[in-house]
Amino acid sequence: MNKAMLTDLYELTMMAAYVDNRKDDTATFDLSIRTLPEGWGYYIANGIEDVIDYLTGIRFYSRDIAFLKKSGLFKQSFLDFLERFRFAGEVHAVREGTPIFSNEPILRVTAKRTQAQLVESALLNMINFQTMIAAKASRVVNAAARGNAVVSEFGLRRAHEEDAGLKGARAAYIAGVTGTSNVKAGMEYGIPLAGTMAHSFVMSFSTELEAFRAYVRTFPDRPTLLIDTYDTLQGVKHAAIVARELAAAGGQLGGVRLDSGDLGALAKKVRTLLDDYGLAEVRIVASSDLNEYKIEALVKTNAPINIYGVGTELITAKPVAAIPGIYKLVEDSGGARMKLSPEKRSGPGKKQVFRRIGADGKYAKDIIALHNEPVSGVPLLTLAVKNGRRVRPKPTLKQIRDYSLGEVAKLPNKLKGIDVSLNYPLEMTPALKALINTLTKKGSH
Amino acid sequence: MNKAMLTDLYELTMMAAYVDNRKDDTATFDLSIRTLPEGWGYYIANGIEDVIDYLTGIRFYSRDIAFLKKSGLFKQSFLDFLERFRFAGEVHAVREGTPIFSNEPILRVTAKRTQAQLVESALLNMINFQTMIAAKASRVVNAAARGNAVVSEFGLRRAHEEDAGLKGARAAYIAGVTGTSNVKAGMEYGIPLAGTMAHSFVMSFSTELEAFRAYVRTFPDRPTLLIDTYDTLQGVKHAAIVARELAAAGGQLGGVRLDSGDLGALAKKVRTLLDDYGLAEVRIVASSDLNEYKIEALVKTNAPINIYGVGTELITAKPVAAIPGIYKLVEDSGGARMKLSPEKRSGPGKKQVFRRIGADGKYAKDIIALHNEPVSGVPLLTLAVKNGRRVRPKPTLKQIRDYSLGEVAKLPNKLKGIDVSLNYPLEMTPALKALINTLTKKGSH
Repeated sequence: MNKAMLTDLYELTMMAAYVDNRKDDTATFDLSIRTLPEGWGYYIANGIEDVIDYLTGIRFYSRDIAFLKKSGLFKQSFLDFLERFRFAGEVHAVREGTPIFSNEPILRVTAKRTQAQLVESALLNMINFQTMIAAKASRVVNAAARGNAVVSEFGLRRAHEEDAGLKGARAAYIAGVTGTSNVKAGMEYGIPLAGTMAHSFVMSFSTELEAFRAYVRTFPDRPTLLIDTYDTLQGVKHAAIVARELAAAGGQLGGVRLDSGDLGALAKKVRTLLDDYGLAEVRIVASSDLNEYKIEALVKTNAPINIYGVGTELITAKPVAAIPGIYKLVEDSGGARMKLSPEKRSGPGKKQVFRRIGADGKYAKDIIALHNEPVSGVPLLTLAVKNGRRVRPKPTLKQIRDYSLGEVAKLPNKLKGIDVSLNYPLEMTPALKALINTLTKKGSH
Repeated sequence: MNKAMLTDLYELTMMAAYVDNRKDDTATFDLSIRTLPEGWGYYIANGIEDVIDYLTGIRFYSRDIAFLKKSGLFKQSFLDFLERFRFAGEVHAVREGTPIFSNEPILRVTAKRTQAQLVESALLNMINFQTMIAAKASRVVNAAARGNAVVSEFGLRRAHEEDAGLKGARAAYIAGVTGTSNVKAGMEYGIPLAGTMAHSFVMSFSTELEAFRAYVRTFPDRPTLLIDTYDTLQGVKHAAIVARELAAAGGQLGGVRLDSGDLGALAKKVRTLLDDYGLAEVRIVASSDLNEYKIEALVKTNAPINIYGVGTELITAKPVAAIPGIYKLVEDSGGARMKLSPEKRSGPGKKQVFRRIGADGKYAKDIIALHNEPVSGVPLLTLAVKNGRRVRPKPTLKQIRDYSLGEVAKLPNKLKGIDVSLNYPLEMTPALKALINTLTKKGSH
């Protein structure tokens, strides 16, 4: 997890200038996300645990130093500084899996300015992607749940390289998908694996029936058969024949998968046929460029689909593809800092976010306060790293997932649709507002 | 580069069923991309070299086998098979950096069916992403070039994790960007590094002038100053003061960067001011959520911008975010194979693509032929891997970039706009058409 060199060049040049100009005082930066994509009700904070691992392990190794030296950009004194470099600061962060909203701090770094600056690029790289995918997956899972269905993550082939496939599968699992097709994600994180067969398998045998028989010979324990290679309604009949043969041998067919055509209409016909064959327990899996909008439409027509396999749009959050996470200076030895340009304003000072529950037992609003104000509600930012060491225990993936699903359950239902138009209420305390006013008048920065 | 476990579960279950059912004959799969995104004129094949490294290095290690054993899905005989597994097949592929179009094979794998099947997910994962980013970057570079400007890649913080940042920077460099902000990409691939400073740097000093002076003290050799933290036109004056001081000390200001506001109008005012100050050689860098459309619009107003820094939309290809690369069975011991479902048809048999030059010296059309047909034109697919070993020498990144830029230069100009509506001509030979007809009549698959 050493990503010291995974940074933008300007982080290093700024650091060098800070060292040179004796500007390495203590500074605080906030990480927040500027806006929510159109129609999204919330994010799910993710990447926090990776960030903690990264911060507590940063080192520049000799190969790194040699490369930077060769670049000719840096003085030897700065290279020596990097060789000794450790992150020795403090981090407050929300728990991995916490639902969050735009414009509230979700992570706060207080450290020597050089330390707090270096890590900007890597922090944003990890949190932007994982937070986006968890939120996207949550939208897909919510849509499927309205039809009493679950979601499997099938996106590896369209993920942006290996890391995105792995971290995306993990984020999706935290947000509620029940399985992934990604074998390495299963191995690295213990996510349940899901998978059926491709059309090339069915095409590899002389007939579809022969292909199905060959498959269940190897996998008699609740296999899923892909039935749309030639003709879906013919396919389900072949699946039924194999199901009967399997039952006679003491096995059981698990499911059939549809991967093309009008999924809603086909699912209804396939369900009827399966039921007629006495195969009520056989589940219907549907895939084919799905997303939360298509699932919502299928659910509205009561399509009898039990499992949605979602790939491309889940693992890339297409068309959103990126979210505007930012990391901004909010305090240094000169006091609270704030950027004044109207389009890109950031809240000054060290802050805390308090989450309040309403009379209905659901979350009602978040209050952003200065960090030392006494405010009622649950404080979301807790101390995760102190003196460069992890002080908040690392949760297991199961703990994160359970926590996250529990927290999402406490969100107002209105935020869980596919086309959310209202904002979750976010307020600032009078003290924070007063600080903003003072800095605005001062023309401070 | 061992990604053996970076596969979808169904690849492994299909392999197990092939082994069990003695279906491990030799098979050929084609990799192609189904469609081009709206308005795009071409792709640039990328990820090919990674694929070759991957194929020639696949191994299942004891940790992998232990995990698969624990899953309970597989028989010991199959686990033993995996332990001995090597890719021993043959690969024909276009050269990395070749402009390509939809529906033409760009890579062909001929191997034992289990070998050819396992690798599907990883091949698509690498080629889909890198090919998409190279093409997106080419669009951005083309738009900037129409204004005699160049492009730097600034996307790390919005890339989908580390790999996407690195491989995306590499793909963008192949496609013509002149630098990246990603320090690790600079180290791993030798891509020139680019970078300036963030607003937090300017805010860290009492005044903008003080910040600029501090920066050039450390970086006197053609530094770029960010001038929009407070007021851009004030900022350029401060930059001019520092430029004069720097010149007096024998240095030289390299550039100023605009990161907000009306970039076109500001660039004109800044250019005039710089010229008035005798700073004609100081370049203007612009950034701020740019893409090929915004750059095209700036170029049309003659905005005097020399370098565009492009981040989010380049490194994620937002809103496209994913391209439909597919990997399809086209031949096995039973002869040529073809999927018949009308929406997802694939061309049967081992094929070759011939590229023809027109009278104007530009590429005029591609001919898709059966692999052993004598057809005029340059054959794009060449033998890259034989008996599981690389036989095509690995090019350097510079060779790939030079080749790719040379090939893109030979494309018709009409394909290089931001809103391309015509398709590059693609033809099939009579023999290939005849094979498709025969298989269609046979109802073959």
